[in-house]
Amino acid sequence: MILLRTIAEAREHSAAARKRGLTIGLVPTMGALHAGHGALMRRAREEAGSVIATIFVNPTQFDRPDDFEKYPRDLQADLAFCESFGVDAVFAPSADEMYSETLTSIEVTGISSRLEGEFRPGHFRGVATVVAKLFNIIPADRAYFGEKDAQQLAVIKKMVADLNIPVIIVPVPTVRELDGLAMSSRNQRLTPADRRIAPAVYQALCEAERLVRSGTRSSSAAIEGGLAVVKQNPMLRIEYLEVVDPTTFQPVDVVISEARIVAAAWLGGVRLIDNLFVSVR
Amino acid sequence: MILLRTIAEAREHSAAARKRGLTIGLVPTMGALHAGHGALMRRAREEAGSVIATIFVNPTQFDRPDDFEKYPRDLQADLAFCESFGVDAVFAPSADEMYSETLTSIEVTGISSRLEGEFRPGHFRGVATVVAKLFNIIPADRAYFGEKDAQQLAVIKKMVADLNIPVIIVPVPTVRELDGLAMSSRNQRLTPADRRIAPAVYQALCEAERLVRSGTRSSSAAIEGGLAVVKQNPMLRIEYLEVVDPTTFQPVDVVISEARIVAAAWLGGVRLIDNLFVSVR
Repeated sequence: MILLRTIAEAREHSAAARKRGLTIGLVPTMGALHAGHGALMRRAREEAGSVIATIFVNPTQFDRPDDFEKYPRDLQADLAFCESFGVDAVFAPSADEMYSETLTSIEVTGISSRLEGEFRPGHFRGVATVVAKLFNIIPADRAYFGEKDAQQLAVIKKMVADLNIPVIIVPVPTVRELDGLAMSSRNQRLTPADRRIAPAVYQALCEAERLVRSGTRSSSAAIEGGLAVVKQNPMLRIEYLEVVDPTTFQPVDVVISEARIVAAAWLGGVRLIDNLFVSVR
Repeated sequence: MILLRTIAEAREHSAAARKRGLTIGLVPTMGALHAGHGALMRRAREEAGSVIATIFVNPTQFDRPDDFEKYPRDLQADLAFCESFGVDAVFAPSADEMYSETLTSIEVTGISSRLEGEFRPGHFRGVATVVAKLFNIIPADRAYFGEKDAQQLAVIKKMVADLNIPVIIVPVPTVRELDGLAMSSRNQRLTPADRRIAPAVYQALCEAERLVRSGTRSSSAAIEGGLAVVKQNPMLRIEYLEVVDPTTFQPVDVVISEARIVAAAWLGGVRLIDNLFVSVR
């Protein structure tokens, strides 16, 4: 496995792969890798001739400096992780390599304005911009993103379509701990006590989903059911629990066909997000 | 010469050129072609194995609907023009082909906020976004832009650098009529009387440039000299005449090394822009 540190090295590696006739599968990450990332890499390994992972804790997508500082970083462990999943090359640039007096940003209006976009101002602008940069540095045929960050996935899909970026975006299902907690790099920062409470976010989503599946079509009734579960855990401070259109992320009042139930909550100093897709067709 | 109408056709044509080992030179235009565009095509023909011109009157870069409606369009004449310059293919998509419920836009802050950006709100967002789309549809090695639109060129260069778009931007000098008027598609819309007045914009720039070259280092003194020329033509309504940094387009008080003298003026219902580069090193 090759470690690429500069944009020039990443371009050269990609061009060589292309020249050998290999398709390129890209797995963009911020490191602190877990089984969720492993699922992305496994899928890429199945589908692409050359698998390139990126590890870059992108400063422009953090709305709070303390979250950026506390974000877990362990490059050596991450490289070993990538190697174990058969990744061919890891692109891990410095912030200076990626940004130098940058004035350009990409905005996906509509999808970006609510939920994560509302509670983390500028977050999706940072995500869209850095992902577009990565696509320009590494001309991937396919790129893999986890459904745990469903709104991010919707923003990236829309950007790729609108800007005609020649890449296929492959969504990969959320990987969960045995108790249902969605895998996340930020879970590392939970205290043992909070770690036991954390699955309540997933349980709340499951209850809302159960209500929809069992005939409740009113979003507000489903949300009420989910919130009742949250309330059993006073330590959990919910930021939002909503039923939204899975493409636009606008709220839906009545579930007619497909929807996504999305939630964000604080537990101690850690912010957790999760979501479930629900189809009633 | 091949006419490409859809994004799929443009991609296929580009991929075939690449497969044959040809470099691709891209000449993005809004049609209504004149000798200025001819200079871009000639340069592309010299440097690239495959020359692709685009003709697309991009609605999102017009700040005024009447300017968009009145913008000259003559596809048959433009195609003949391209053929005469040895262009290999013309990509001329419909607006529907290029935009379908688009939510994504690219902003280059700083450079975009003044002069053209101030007088034409949203103009550079439209330009940056459509140019990025074209680069994603046609993976050009080099792309050619005229210096007449110097601020546009600076915005595109900065976008390409910031987003790591793998293309070389080639600036091509402004082509002028015998009396100095910068070639522009909008010149067609000048009345014969206004056409005789129009070179005054260039003359004003020349006077400001002459002052700088002859030792005047104060921008305000150079601008004053230029404005005196404008004032001899009461029909010409100046929007701005400024001395700016050639990269950032921020105003400079004193010309130390390099600068660009830029102007925009209205003549009847037509808006004219022009600029001159000046170096005192």
